[in-house]
Amino acid sequence: MLFLVISGNIDIVVKDRNDLLQKELDLMLGSDIVLSDSEEKANEIFMELKTQELEYGFRNPQYYNYSKHFFEFNTEIVNSELFKLIQKMPKGALLHAHDTGLLKADYVLNLTYCDYLYVCFQENNVNFLFSEDRPTTFCGTQWELVKDKRYSSSGAEKFDNELKKYFTLVTDNPKEVYNNINVVWNKFQNYFINTAGLFSYKPVWEQYFYDTLKAARDDNIMYLEIRSVLPPLYDLKGNVFDSIATAESYKKILDKFKTDFPDFFGAKLIYAPSRLVNVEVVKNYVEIAKEIRRKMPHFLAGFDLVGQEDLGGPIKDFLAELIKSSDEINYFFHAGETNWYGTSSDENLADAIVLGARRIGHAFAIVKHPLLLEEVKKKNIALEVNVISNAVLKLVEDVRNHPLASLLAQNMPVVISSDDPGVWDAEILSHDFYVTFMGVASKHADLRLLKKLALNSLFYSEISNKDKALHEFDIRWTKFIDSIVKDKW
Amino acid sequence: MLFLVISGNIDIVVKDRNDLLQKELDLMLGSDIVLSDSEEKANEIFMELKTQELEYGFRNPQYYNYSKHFFEFNTEIVNSELFKLIQKMPKGALLHAHDTGLLKADYVLNLTYCDYLYVCFQENNVNFLFSEDRPTTFCGTQWELVKDKRYSSSGAEKFDNELKKYFTLVTDNPKEVYNNINVVWNKFQNYFINTAGLFSYKPVWEQYFYDTLKAARDDNIMYLEIRSVLPPLYDLKGNVFDSIATAESYKKILDKFKTDFPDFFGAKLIYAPSRLVNVEVVKNYVEIAKEIRRKMPHFLAGFDLVGQEDLGGPIKDFLAELIKSSDEINYFFHAGETNWYGTSSDENLADAIVLGARRIGHAFAIVKHPLLLEEVKKKNIALEVNVISNAVLKLVEDVRNHPLASLLAQNMPVVISSDDPGVWDAEILSHDFYVTFMGVASKHADLRLLKKLALNSLFYSEISNKDKALHEFDIRWTKFIDSIVKDKW
Repeated sequence: MLFLVISGNIDIVVKDRNDLLQKELDLMLGSDIVLSDSEEKANEIFMELKTQELEYGFRNPQYYNYSKHFFEFNTEIVNSELFKLIQKMPKGALLHAHDTGLLKADYVLNLTYCDYLYVCFQENNVNFLFSEDRPTTFCGTQWELVKDKRYSSSGAEKFDNELKKYFTLVTDNPKEVYNNINVVWNKFQNYFINTAGLFSYKPVWEQYFYDTLKAARDDNIMYLEIRSVLPPLYDLKGNVFDSIATAESYKKILDKFKTDFPDFFGAKLIYAPSRLVNVEVVKNYVEIAKEIRRKMPHFLAGFDLVGQEDLGGPIKDFLAELIKSSDEINYFFHAGETNWYGTSSDENLADAIVLGARRIGHAFAIVKHPLLLEEVKKKNIALEVNVISNAVLKLVEDVRNHPLASLLAQNMPVVISSDDPGVWDAEILSHDFYVTFMGVASKHADLRLLKKLALNSLFYSEISNKDKALHEFDIRWTKFIDSIVKDKW
Repeated sequence: MLFLVISGNIDIVVKDRNDLLQKELDLMLGSDIVLSDSEEKANEIFMELKTQELEYGFRNPQYYNYSKHFFEFNTEIVNSELFKLIQKMPKGALLHAHDTGLLKADYVLNLTYCDYLYVCFQENNVNFLFSEDRPTTFCGTQWELVKDKRYSSSGAEKFDNELKKYFTLVTDNPKEVYNNINVVWNKFQNYFINTAGLFSYKPVWEQYFYDTLKAARDDNIMYLEIRSVLPPLYDLKGNVFDSIATAESYKKILDKFKTDFPDFFGAKLIYAPSRLVNVEVVKNYVEIAKEIRRKMPHFLAGFDLVGQEDLGGPIKDFLAELIKSSDEINYFFHAGETNWYGTSSDENLADAIVLGARRIGHAFAIVKHPLLLEEVKKKNIALEVNVISNAVLKLVEDVRNHPLASLLAQNMPVVISSDDPGVWDAEILSHDFYVTFMGVASKHADLRLLKKLALNSLFYSEISNKDKALHEFDIRWTKFIDSIVKDKW
């Protein structure tokens, strides 16, 4: 009798334990997705690959890649069978991406082979300028044609290798080189400064955007929302254009790309200038955004401010100005891209929410804010999470500690994005999906999470023809599933 | 008119923003504490010191210490005025502490000056044994009197410095030396293996415990719950005693200490043997716990299992056995001391909860488990958080990413403890309080948090005379506050 009672207790406890854990899995992002029979088969393939790798890492943490720096495992990822599947997988939309940080260093290096490109090397920086004649503007040292410099130096290969260092954060010993957050942010911001003269030459600007759209399409992305500071572009004659013209340039290229690739669903612009300015400048920014909307009503998705949040320009300072236009302009603020707690950068999260942001960029700090999490859920504000960016830019070392894990568990409205993948030599979105799936999400998180993340990216986008896009996604997803199931069975 | 409407909107938005953030502060752990006038004055002192240091770090992250490895800022902490205040502050109870990891390397080194101590150096390890005659047990190389070895070697100082390395994890370049979690855990576990023969000599064992109680009292701790594997002790004659005798040894020393220091509120034992065993051994463990309780009913606080959770011995395997005694023995399981998600180590959290644990050790992974967090709150299970331990043992690098921040924000039942502070050269509890307050908690978290954490440690303890202890805490706290206010005003 006693035995039976005890045995009963044990059964109840085991059931309680399993129920608790199962209820959590049922709560997790993606748990509402019901898989078809084919998807179940595909899921088996995904989970077999995932489990194998994770269990090996669990037993041998020295070989578990995702606890290392991204630069130490980036080159290994491309050999992963699971990564190859994720590359082929339709991923919906790319929603948090900065225009001139999307393509890899090799691509940027290739741009320096263009004619009429002058370079000026300074102590730790480089300037570029396209010009018919040798530029006369002051540059610290002297302007030389890249072509001349490349072939007059100690070999084009050595020259190119040196030049490429300006186009990437990748280094052999990242933990030593980037020993605090400001070091890596300095190098990161120098990338944009160093490449400014190269990219803002109108023909290069347009080519870069065209190739970005192509890279997105190649990575199985249907639609893109691109953040841009909209720098003034220039031409060989020395003409300089304004921010509106830069936006128009984007629109023109987008139209051309859609003609060339009618299966691509398009792109929209988030005007995102620097936050390190005063309120008068922000007022002017908003006017520019409105002007773009007037001229290209279907092209502007909205407005944001960029720059290392800890260094200043808290949204709070611009609250009075920004609230005036919150009914007219959609906001997509960066907020809480910090590991400080209780600082102005952390509290940007509250400002983004009260300003009615449609989505919040990063929101890394939001797990420390239970009420803000509630608000975000209630108002259905998507959080644009960029795991690899946060790791490279030193918010978190081991991606298993990324707050996204907790957001996924709480079924928060999350989209996965890539921020500036080219600067760390990642694919335009696949690496971020892969690291999220393998390094951040639960071992039990499966194909349903991946599908949900892809669907979320369309759902929380400002895409004009959302229903059509979702329908097309469904078709492509089914094709993808069928192709991998067919390969296997 | 329009101006007035807009201005009204702005006021509402600013109010919404401030309300949101204030409501979160009102939710935070410690927010229910009402400060007296004197405490308000003391709080000003605390917050002035805290704010000054944090704002400097916010502007100059290269100088912000708590993002570095603990070994890189440990020696600087002791110069902090705030740290000195925290040392003097009554901190209540120490609830998560492993008996032979509490005192610093210098103390351990000093023990090797005892007579009759033999040493045997192996390749990377060392063995100690007290004996009247040269030990005859096999040790790989040869047994020598420490005294002989110390003075026959190339100088006592050099010998001591070499020996001390076995007694600490501290090293000059921790990030390079400990490049994955298993490396640091190996070194950590070797500390316990290397010192076993030294500590389990009965007179040393008893002296170590007496000095631990003294260190706790000196660090303004009133009461201690000590985890022990209860190793067999031995004497010079070669007698070996059982685990029950080890517990009795503790009880005897505790009684002596309380006679010497009647203001100390005592200690209880959590029997916590290794988890890397089979279920039969666990069954035997539980019998030992019951036997201790029979013999010393007021000395045993409860039962736990120890060892690196990722390596095995998940609670799940012992569920059936452990549930049988859950009405008789209090459980204080280590669970979720991992940055894996969805693994057996992560899921130990669910097992600890269904087994009715009074408190959970570490619970590092619990922020990824919204339902387990709810259960813990509903059942009022305290989480014993050890920030510095988690940083040194490589669960998290930057303490600002420690999940404790989120637990504090959610007003979870948290106690701060120190795990094995001696092994990383920290004070017995003050460093953990300091790092929690400065590096983990919100910039806005103030004296109320510190007081709450101290009160929680008594509230969630198994102390016999809780009301009396809380009353005495109140007296000591008031004295502390008065002393610092008097110093300042």
